[in-house]
Amino acid sequence: MQAARYYGNRDVRIDEIDAPSPEADEVLIDVEACGICRSDVKEYQQGPKFYGDDLPYAMGHEIGGTVVEAGEDADVPVGTDLVLNPIVACGSCRFCDDAQYHLCQNMSFIGAHRQGGYAELVAAPAENVVPLPDGVSPEMAAVAEPLAVAFHAVTQSTLRLGDSVAVVGLGPIGLGLVQVAKAVGAGSVYASGHRAARRALATESGADLVVDPRETDPVERFSEETDGGVDVAFEVAGNESALNDAIGSTRPGGHTTIVGVFGGDVSIDPMTLVNFERSVNASAGYRGGPHAERDFGSVVELFADGRLDPDPLVTSRIGLGEIVESGFEALSDGESEDVKILVKP
Amino acid sequence: MQAARYYGNRDVRIDEIDAPSPEADEVLIDVEACGICRSDVKEYQQGPKFYGDDLPYAMGHEIGGTVVEAGEDADVPVGTDLVLNPIVACGSCRFCDDAQYHLCQNMSFIGAHRQGGYAELVAAPAENVVPLPDGVSPEMAAVAEPLAVAFHAVTQSTLRLGDSVAVVGLGPIGLGLVQVAKAVGAGSVYASGHRAARRALATESGADLVVDPRETDPVERFSEETDGGVDVAFEVAGNESALNDAIGSTRPGGHTTIVGVFGGDVSIDPMTLVNFERSVNASAGYRGGPHAERDFGSVVELFADGRLDPDPLVTSRIGLGEIVESGFEALSDGESEDVKILVKP
Repeated sequence: MQAARYYGNRDVRIDEIDAPSPEADEVLIDVEACGICRSDVKEYQQGPKFYGDDLPYAMGHEIGGTVVEAGEDADVPVGTDLVLNPIVACGSCRFCDDAQYHLCQNMSFIGAHRQGGYAELVAAPAENVVPLPDGVSPEMAAVAEPLAVAFHAVTQSTLRLGDSVAVVGLGPIGLGLVQVAKAVGAGSVYASGHRAARRALATESGADLVVDPRETDPVERFSEETDGGVDVAFEVAGNESALNDAIGSTRPGGHTTIVGVFGGDVSIDPMTLVNFERSVNASAGYRGGPHAERDFGSVVELFADGRLDPDPLVTSRIGLGEIVESGFEALSDGESEDVKILVKP
Repeated sequence: MQAARYYGNRDVRIDEIDAPSPEADEVLIDVEACGICRSDVKEYQQGPKFYGDDLPYAMGHEIGGTVVEAGEDADVPVGTDLVLNPIVACGSCRFCDDAQYHLCQNMSFIGAHRQGGYAELVAAPAENVVPLPDGVSPEMAAVAEPLAVAFHAVTQSTLRLGDSVAVVGLGPIGLGLVQVAKAVGAGSVYASGHRAARRALATESGADLVVDPRETDPVERFSEETDGGVDVAFEVAGNESALNDAIGSTRPGGHTTIVGVFGGDVSIDPMTLVNFERSVNASAGYRGGPHAERDFGSVVELFADGRLDPDPLVTSRIGLGEIVESGFEALSDGESEDVKILVKP
């Protein structure tokens, strides 16, 4: 089969390799689509650093496809359309003991520590398979992954029906958060992001007000709109100004959930918390391992009933052979208008 | 009457001034004792800066005493022993509209924006009077103020029965937190502080393990004791290392409540939150204004039934005339063995 394998810094090659053989508790999946995640681009640009070091391997963890072979202990019928939850938990660390499989200390993440979806076929544990409801295609299912991050973040936040929300950062997950917040009953949703195309998408996704933080101070603007701050903010950019904008946008007693991935220390003034009794928590990915269906299953159900719409997030579809130029390199441009690029092996 | 009035930087004078006259909704209080707060020392050393600017006035907001005169609308009998809640709320800002009187934007704090307890007599709104239960003396009641800060912090935290706790910072409020956490049913309580005398007091107050952070890393040590971190940490020092120690001491999914007052920005790594889905909130003082009795009333009840013991926190008692040398100057020494100094006007 063909696979786009990562050999090291800015080095991805299209190889012809043997198809993987599923273990007894695994299935073999025909990959219909695999989304390119920002963290894959980062590993391509700055790595090998964040993912595993067993090079070469195919990255790609946003996988929609169909089961074509099942191991003898894998209780998933051949032909099952699915989205794959990439978190393979060890089952024996203290996090797994507490059923916090998504925090597993020995996590083997599909597409980072073992072969992922930038390939025609991928083998994965049967427990990581999330079957699709009627009306959801394996291609669209690939987009369930960033939306599962958004969904999990909402479950970890204090969001209640009717609450006002700020989303700071409008990558695929931030845009997903706008949709998820609306889908689960938020009141007004305000958003802040740097790129014009993504701001337009935020509006299309249901945001009530969208600002460019270089032109309009989101803290001031969102506070005006809400008479003093939103109930819940989500930080989805992974940088200092976004974190301070998110916290500053909340009302007294309001809450911020950090979703972004940060590259190091940031500076905050704790008195912005203390003086207003604000709170902050954090969301890490989504439930995984034996809980593979928790967040992913909810997301694909929301796809099926139309309350979440992955379509607007997909801005291009490319073949494996185009993954370097039209994928990694295109997304390395900070001004790219692309949001979610799907690779179709 | 005599009053120790603040005239500006490091300038406090003992003046003979007219006794205040209570307004219709106020009472006049004979001050039995007034504790010196670290923030008063800061205003003395670095101010005028943090408090009001209507100089000169007597600071002092940790007030125990007895009502000697009541205005015509003040529904508090002469002779009532009390602790005074110093938060005078405006009643009309958006925080007051939400009954968050302790966050009032126009707060007039007794001892900071109006005459306080470093004087023989003080006038205050009747609604700020918290009557004492039997067995609690007006002198001991002065210590209810820092313990109300500790009590409020616990109510704002996620602390549940049996939870393990870390207290980082062992000033009067940190020491109070050790006591309050034990009093309300915490499991093991671990503490970290720089001064030997205060560490000894933490042990005396019920802490199960107390470390000097310059010798023993509290994050490592507390994690060892708890197999991976405490359930709830309290930051009670107001500095960067204490905040990072507090957050780092918590288990995955654990919670930190910030109680310390910070002088500016601090550096944190948001991934210490994200990777473990930890959370942080903040506690500001205690309920006040029309809710004056909420935290203070609970604290003096805990004094009465013996579950909180203010005695060990009181390390000296001084007269008004000694307030500069034996009070502000003594507490300006970062190595002082004093904890709570009571002024007895």
